[in-house]
Amino acid sequence: MTLRKRVYNTLEFSAVGRRGMSLYINIALVSIIFINSVAIILHTVPEIRHYRLYESIFTDFEIFSVIIFTIEYCLRIWSCVENPRYKNGWRGRLRYIFSFWAIVDFLGIFPFYFTLLTSDFGIIRILRVFRLFRLFRVTRYSHALKMIRNVLLETKEELLICFSFIIFTLLISSSVMYYLEHNVQPERFRSIPATLWWGVITMTTTGYGDMYPVTAAGKFFGGIVLILGIALFALPTGIIASGFMEQIRRDKGRKYIQCPHCNEWVDLQEVHHVHKPTEKH
Amino acid sequence: MTLRKRVYNTLEFSAVGRRGMSLYINIALVSIIFINSVAIILHTVPEIRHYRLYESIFTDFEIFSVIIFTIEYCLRIWSCVENPRYKNGWRGRLRYIFSFWAIVDFLGIFPFYFTLLTSDFGIIRILRVFRLFRLFRVTRYSHALKMIRNVLLETKEELLICFSFIIFTLLISSSVMYYLEHNVQPERFRSIPATLWWGVITMTTTGYGDMYPVTAAGKFFGGIVLILGIALFALPTGIIASGFMEQIRRDKGRKYIQCPHCNEWVDLQEVHHVHKPTEKH
Amino acid sequence: MTLRKRVYNTLEFSAVGRRGMSLYINIALVSIIFINSVAIILHTVPEIRHYRLYESIFTDFEIFSVIIFTIEYCLRIWSCVENPRYKNGWRGRLRYIFSFWAIVDFLGIFPFYFTLLTSDFGIIRILRVFRLFRLFRVTRYSHALKMIRNVLLETKEELLICFSFIIFTLLISSSVMYYLEHNVQPERFRSIPATLWWGVITMTTTGYGDMYPVTAAGKFFGGIVLILGIALFALPTGIIASGFMEQIRRDKGRKYIQCPHCNEWVDLQEVHHVHKPTEKH
Amino acid sequence: MTLRKRVYNTLEFSAVGRRGMSLYINIALVSIIFINSVAIILHTVPEIRHYRLYESIFTDFEIFSVIIFTIEYCLRIWSCVENPRYKNGWRGRLRYIFSFWAIVDFLGIFPFYFTLLTSDFGIIRILRVFRLFRLFRVTRYSHALKMIRNVLLETKEELLICFSFIIFTLLISSSVMYYLEHNVQPERFRSIPATLWWGVITMTTTGYGDMYPVTAAGKFFGGIVLILGIALFALPTGIIASGFMEQIRRDKGRKYIQCPHCNEWVDLQEVHHVHKPTEKH
Repeated sequence: MTLRKRVYNTLEFSAVGRRGMSLYINIALVSIIFINSVAIILHTVPEIRHYRLYESIFTDFEIFSVIIFTIEYCLRIWSCVENPRYKNGWRGRLRYIFSFWAIVDFLGIFPFYFTLLTSDFGIIRILRVFRLFRLFRVTRYSHALKMIRNVLLETKEELLICFSFIIFTLLISSSVMYYLEHNVQPERFRSIPATLWWGVITMTTTGYGDMYPVTAAGKFFGGIVLILGIALFALPTGIIASGFMEQIRRDKGRKYIQCPHCNEWVDLQEVHHVHKPTEKH
Repeated sequence: MTLRKRVYNTLEFSAVGRRGMSLYINIALVSIIFINSVAIILHTVPEIRHYRLYESIFTDFEIFSVIIFTIEYCLRIWSCVENPRYKNGWRGRLRYIFSFWAIVDFLGIFPFYFTLLTSDFGIIRILRVFRLFRLFRVTRYSHALKMIRNVLLETKEELLICFSFIIFTLLISSSVMYYLEHNVQPERFRSIPATLWWGVITMTTTGYGDMYPVTAAGKFFGGIVLILGIALFALPTGIIASGFMEQIRRDKGRKYIQCPHCNEWVDLQEVHHVHKPTEKH
Repeated sequence: MTLRKRVYNTLEFSAVGRRGMSLYINIALVSIIFINSVAIILHTVPEIRHYRLYESIFTDFEIFSVIIFTIEYCLRIWSCVENPRYKNGWRGRLRYIFSFWAIVDFLGIFPFYFTLLTSDFGIIRILRVFRLFRLFRVTRYSHALKMIRNVLLETKEELLICFSFIIFTLLISSSVMYYLEHNVQPERFRSIPATLWWGVITMTTTGYGDMYPVTAAGKFFGGIVLILGIALFALPTGIIASGFMEQIRRDKGRKYIQCPHCNEWVDLQEVHHVHKPTEKH
Repeated sequence: MTLRKRVYNTLEFSAVGRRGMSLYINIALVSIIFINSVAIILHTVPEIRHYRLYESIFTDFEIFSVIIFTIEYCLRIWSCVENPRYKNGWRGRLRYIFSFWAIVDFLGIFPFYFTLLTSDFGIIRILRVFRLFRLFRVTRYSHALKMIRNVLLETKEELLICFSFIIFTLLISSSVMYYLEHNVQPERFRSIPATLWWGVITMTTTGYGDMYPVTAAGKFFGGIVLILGIALFALPTGIIASGFMEQIRRDKGRKYIQCPHCNEWVDLQEVHHVHKPTEKH
């Protein structure tokens, strides 16, 4: 086995399973990502940031993890051609660079080099938080996760229609509310786009309290929107619930065995109860 | 084919399918409606409205789209007699004018001519937003939309009863809360109709924070209303979820084939697993 | 037929069906109740109450409806012995007086006579709103209402356990929050009973904004309570949804016919699809 | 029967059933716990605490119940070796001391002795509220409670994944919101941990109103988080609903009887309707 093949197998967790070198390296990487994320979050707390020792440890750890991530990123690009999907040499490597996980990896290290060159942009710094996404790479795609994904995929069409209903109701109700409240609260209900914020916090029943109708007409209309909103948000819950039911039913429907006496296919659960008549409810 | 028949087929999207001239004209109309709606929404933003260039483009585009919509509206009324439902000449046309979609079309162009004649009424202007409704005309009535409609139609009776429960609980709880809080907060809990606003924002768990009980009795009663409200709003979600399940079950129940050997009708899913015993769970 | 029997049949709507005299009298009573309820609600609006003409009409209508309700109440007590359940003369009448609907009727007229005798107690006046309950008497117990009642009755045990979980979590979380926040906000988090109000508005996700934790520990604990609360309130929705499903399944399970050829009982839906193979999905 | 065996049987409610001495002693203990919990809650109300008579009764009752609980705790430790799980003399006793219910018992009495020795720590006092947990010990594990437990256990995996999704979305959205709002509201959106509070009260749609975005970008992003949050919280409801359905279906699936004529197993419900054809829907 070539060195490149070895590096590929070690880094690509899912390729060879969870043992030996690959397991330890992945545990180390996940630990670094986890500590790193916690450090980034804590670094925004003023009391902690201004504490000199933390600052120096934080900077050192940041540099250390970026070096590790950069090495890992380069090794992945170098070894990715071992994957049949990216095997065409440099063309395969280019395609790998623009794959989902490679972009996630890049977003995790790019902000550091960017802030080295130029002054500090807050919005770039935040991209470092996307390192958290990498934690999902090592998630074992368990039965439960597969089920949730299946349910969302199968009810996709219904959920999209619900979503477009929500957006449509949001636009109409915010427009009407703007015309009802604009004259009385010109500062709060400034424009229809500004009133959309009212629409979202109302239809999701959040109600921060920064925007609410004060006229009788606005309150009456708002009440109708609220009750309609509840119905609208009950739809996705209903759709998802029925999707899970269907998924479970399909899983259960596969539990058949061939009866040894008559060669007919028999539902396992029924057989189970035939042989244990005392279990009857 | 007469000119009227051609105009009818071109405008009535669903009549001949999605191709040729009809497709392009409908895409053009939808684009105009969409840009128009965005323009109306953006026009309410003070920063944009006071920007001279936008104002002139907006006015020109408004005039342009109203002319297009007016021509389309007239052509639809002229050609609607080709539809068997409105075939009795002028009587059919009159019935068409009062059909749902013709009223939507009329509400989309009427405000413009109204504001030409008189001074500006905000509430009339808003009717222009109803042009958005027209976007639904071109929606393909997909399987998912039909399913949502079926579920809502079949659970209609249960949902209406839930709705009347909600209205009833709203009236009773607002009346009681009015008597409990009126003496302490005479300005906020002014009257029962004013307290209905509290009822709506409480039972939908929005809680803007502009009205809430402050007396011990009011808080105790409010707590009971809140927990009851949760139960009341759990009902529609449950009803809709069960409606979807039932709908899926009925759809699935139709997947039968006739067995080629014994002429019996067989559930497709079961057969599928008999021939692929390796797929067993 | 005696006069008493006639009065009974006329008043007891459900006894003889909806026709003739009984129908008209019941429509009249429902209308009076409805107008009366609206009048009571509107009477609390200061602008309307201080309008002299309304005040006099309101008082007259109030006296008129109380007279009607009193006559109806007396007639019902007099004629109730025609009902087999209350047939033992005065003993039956006494039992009728303490039946649910008779108490509702009494609560509807009692406040009027009470306020005649003494000065005005706001809390007694409110009992008049309970007249609204009477609207439910004439509700036709439709299939949908029966279904909702069945679902609630069958999931009663599970819902009660959820309810006791909610009360328990409420007590524990409010107690903990009191100890966490009392020192910083002694006025708002005054005592555990006062903090229960925070518990209710938080766990139902209402969040008026009059009480919320400000300490780091309080916010951390509050966040846990909120996410737990969501899970706790998802339980009743899930229970009710499954109850509806079960109810529908049971209803559907009864649609069997006896096959005319082999005398076997056949599911109606399956037969339906065998004869229309073109309907297959 | 030795005295120790008797004490064990009397205290361990579930061991011998609900009758005789054991029943009365347990009712007495539950009553003391209940009154005690109410007293602890009421003791935090300033008006009641400063009322001299209440204070003295409260202190006396507190001492009385702690003595009772201490005696009970000692007797339980002494007699626990009668339970086969803790039979190895002192080793069994040690294991019992660290069992779940023994810790709950200890937490209920420990704070009293702790506050006797040292000055008053509020946070220790609160542990007394955990006595409420003991009420669950005597709960009969009814069919409904078992069902809820089964549903939660079986959907455990899916619920955990939903929970990790929620935590992940919380972290990402709070981080982004911190960078969007920190410059405009440096006091409110102080750090990412502080913004997590915004994330929790927003995604659970509580919306106290103490923290909300004010910039256009923050409001836009907040709106997306809110609508996503609704979808995320619809998942557990759907999962739980389908879990209940599955549980009911399994319970119902066990209602089979063996047909006396052909020895086939028959669904009870179907048979029921065959013999009562008049019941058909």
